[in-house]
Amino acid sequence: RDIQREPDTRKVPIDKVGVKNISYPIVVQDKSKLEQHTVARINMYVDLPHHFKGTHMSRFIEILNQYRGEISILSLDTILQEMKERLEASCAHMELEFPYFIEKQAPASGARGLMEYQCRMLGTLGDSADFVLGVTVPVTSLCPCSKEISARGAHNQRSAINVQIRYRDHVWLEDLIEWVESCGSAPVYSLLKREDEKAVTEQAYDNPMFVEDIVRAVTLKLRQQPAIQWFRVECENFESIHNHSAYALVESGTR
Amino acid sequence: RDIQREPDTRKVPIDKVGVKNISYPIVVQDKSKLEQHTVARINMYVDLPHHFKGTHMSRFIEILNQYRGEISILSLDTILQEMKERLEASCAHMELEFPYFIEKQAPASGARGLMEYQCRMLGTLGDSADFVLGVTVPVTSLCPCSKEISARGAHNQRSAINVQIRYRDHVWLEDLIEWVESCGSAPVYSLLKREDEKAVTEQAYDNPMFVEDIVRAVTLKLRQQPAIQWFRVECENFESIHNHSAYALVESGTR
Amino acid sequence: RDIQREPDTRKVPIDKVGVKNISYPIVVQDKSKLEQHTVARINMYVDLPHHFKGTHMSRFIEILNQYRGEISILSLDTILQEMKERLEASCAHMELEFPYFIEKQAPASGARGLMEYQCRMLGTLGDSADFVLGVTVPVTSLCPCSKEISARGAHNQRSAINVQIRYRDHVWLEDLIEWVESCGSAPVYSLLKREDEKAVTEQAYDNPMFVEDIVRAVTLKLRQQPAIQWFRVECENFESIHNHSAYALVESGTR
Amino acid sequence: RDIQREPDTRKVPIDKVGVKNISYPIVVQDKSKLEQHTVARINMYVDLPHHFKGTHMSRFIEILNQYRGEISILSLDTILQEMKERLEASCAHMELEFPYFIEKQAPASGARGLMEYQCRMLGTLGDSADFVLGVTVPVTSLCPCSKEISARGAHNQRSAINVQIRYRDHVWLEDLIEWVESCGSAPVYSLLKREDEKAVTEQAYDNPMFVEDIVRAVTLKLRQQPAIQWFRVECENFESIHNHSAYALVESGTR
Repeated sequence: RDIQREPDTRKVPIDKVGVKNISYPIVVQDKSKLEQHTVARINMYVDLPHHFKGTHMSRFIEILNQYRGEISILSLDTILQEMKERLEASCAHMELEFPYFIEKQAPASGARGLMEYQCRMLGTLGDSADFVLGVTVPVTSLCPCSKEISARGAHNQRSAINVQIRYRDHVWLEDLIEWVESCGSAPVYSLLKREDEKAVTEQAYDNPMFVEDIVRAVTLKLRQQPAIQWFRVECENFESIHNHSAYALVESGTR
Repeated sequence: RDIQREPDTRKVPIDKVGVKNISYPIVVQDKSKLEQHTVARINMYVDLPHHFKGTHMSRFIEILNQYRGEISILSLDTILQEMKERLEASCAHMELEFPYFIEKQAPASGARGLMEYQCRMLGTLGDSADFVLGVTVPVTSLCPCSKEISARGAHNQRSAINVQIRYRDHVWLEDLIEWVESCGSAPVYSLLKREDEKAVTEQAYDNPMFVEDIVRAVTLKLRQQPAIQWFRVECENFESIHNHSAYALVESGTR
Repeated sequence: RDIQREPDTRKVPIDKVGVKNISYPIVVQDKSKLEQHTVARINMYVDLPHHFKGTHMSRFIEILNQYRGEISILSLDTILQEMKERLEASCAHMELEFPYFIEKQAPASGARGLMEYQCRMLGTLGDSADFVLGVTVPVTSLCPCSKEISARGAHNQRSAINVQIRYRDHVWLEDLIEWVESCGSAPVYSLLKREDEKAVTEQAYDNPMFVEDIVRAVTLKLRQQPAIQWFRVECENFESIHNHSAYALVESGTR
Repeated sequence: RDIQREPDTRKVPIDKVGVKNISYPIVVQDKSKLEQHTVARINMYVDLPHHFKGTHMSRFIEILNQYRGEISILSLDTILQEMKERLEASCAHMELEFPYFIEKQAPASGARGLMEYQCRMLGTLGDSADFVLGVTVPVTSLCPCSKEISARGAHNQRSAINVQIRYRDHVWLEDLIEWVESCGSAPVYSLLKREDEKAVTEQAYDNPMFVEDIVRAVTLKLRQQPAIQWFRVECENFESIHNHSAYALVESGTR
């Protein structure tokens, strides 16, 4: 007796039902066509018509296993299609969040280090398809007001710029990160030698930005990319002089 | 020289700008007209027209201090109005998240214990006003399929039902929690004696519910309340037989 | 049939058994003898001799309810004594973590704001008693190396100084916080006006400190307090130029 | 001018100083000699004599980069040795925490799924070496008291067993996980078909265990392994009938 397939008379269709918070190793193809191994948090949902009592949770995991080692932006559509079919749904959702690593050179010494960026992919396939690519990019922000009013120095801090985009043409994570990373007072690095620390300190001091300036700079930068049709950018400054954050958000374009 | 008030020529209005993640003691009036002291995480944002360079972050904190000890659903409108005026904005947002405590009696012994519920208030005041009340209610869920196919026992687990509502007439947190708490296989308690543990175990076994059943039960329950015009209900089951969650979501009504 | 009291033949005594992660409203008496309402995360454990199968979990909650509204440093000993008796244990442990608020004046304007400090109390009562008081104090740190090598500016960031102490004579949280807060490049505030931001920026710039300097400064400061017999101080700098933290730890005195 | 190498006159040696919370891709060799790609959170510390002002933070990252792709239990000693030399320290510490995946077969259908286990390695190299291996293993626990007193059913829930061991001879993560996983009421799986769900439900019902029983079972199991010289086992039951956890801890052996 398959309880999940029994009829339900409550007339309540369910928007999303499925599995949440699965940790799973994935392979992401990077811009230079190399494969990067990482670990994702994954959610998978479908809709459920009002007349069915339940969905089949184990099928989500079976689909995940079937595409093991092949999960990527390219395969997301195929996976979503498979979810719709095997779960007899009209709409499927898949969400992945994972750390992604890019080798970055220090500005003066050229020393190389690995930077981590937290990335997100949100795919939906119903009558039409929807895909959102997201990344959180850490930068330094230096306060213009503090610099202006102080006889010396200026408070600065780590900021997290969080962007989500919808695109017309494929955008590489590497490119998106590069665009966003250029919009703070200075980038953040994993490895800095003395000459680099000097360079970064001076760059930030010469380039003061409010949290408002950062989201505006990202807005202008992303509007220049014809491939991007919609974006939302948030910046959170973990203020060095406060125990709370400064925050700003701009949403722009057509979903 | 007030840098924040300087003109900005980039033509990028900002949707939200302000302070985030402030921890602050608040007082919440409960249904029996008593005051409950608790601690909230608070975010406060306004919009910023394109021609201004920055907002004045310290004014958010000044407003918070001004209403210290008076922050509540009732004062939220006044605070949002004050934010609009002092920050010369056309739209203000305030978000609070806080633990709320209700004394609850065990089902058989009548023993009393304090239950914690994580609550949220999201207020927006632009041309019109918007208010969302939210709460996360833990319940027990017992799997109907596991019960049906097993010769004895049935897997069960803690679930978190998360609801957000918009209402026409004021809804007390106590009432919202009571409605939602009745929609699992059994409620969750802080204090249970032996006879209570028996009662709760049997109640859950006699009342098996999928994650789908729970969001449907909440949907039917909230639709019966004329005061509620919109809601979103999510349920996450922290599966006792898996290392991931089962999840379902229904959104209903007019925003 | 009381299963918990049945004999156990495996000869394995249990070091700690009890309830964990209870959210509970508490009242803390502050230095000015006023009461502060806050919300704690609480763990309560006892030891269990090898010949008993289990402890009685509901009694922990009953004890908590019995002392509702009276939980404090002063009552901790009484609660631990009660735990030993009602649970027939030879050793009892209670751990509380809670946000604590202190009104603080901005350095130039004198504007008042509420600062949150995350506090901890760890009490153990066996043959002898042990009590550890802990607090996390946010400060600003400004890098001496960055200042020295850069033509202008210096990177700085929020740091979290975490101290734990054992004392001979009672130490108020207010005093402990004041000692620690003076050991960064500058304190952190919730409310700063323009003149304050100037003062704090310049203070930090004039007072550069490595993470090593901060834990050493706290070490010297706490060693001056005859009431303190042991301490452990950690500092974590959320580096504004990196995506990771700098960290240092000193432990000193006799447990 | 190398500020870090300047003399310090405060006579305060520092127990640990270094970098914290670095996210880094690593490769772990599994028992079947295959390599597993995963992502670790890494902390690296050394001690600092009282007469030096500071350590050189960038060298930690350089060492990490030097051993990129080779970080493992086997190389940990080499890395710690390198840290001592390059940072002129007498003691070095390295901590890694990472998800580790093992393919596991469902008990009845034999269906295969990937289980995630959160692992930890803590290495210290001073005059002597110390190494701690840790893993968190999720299991199902079913309450003996609830089963005994209830006419039908029994409350059960996911539990997290956290073990740390020191060993004389190398212990594979796969073996440690297998020992621990056998100590709950039933194991937890990522993929279960209907016949598996029946098997697991009945296994848990036939094998009721208190949180005390679980840590005792792990204790007996680990004492049987001659390779293990010390261990600490904790179990946390995320109670399905409460909003808090039940918890137990046993420490055994010689450090």
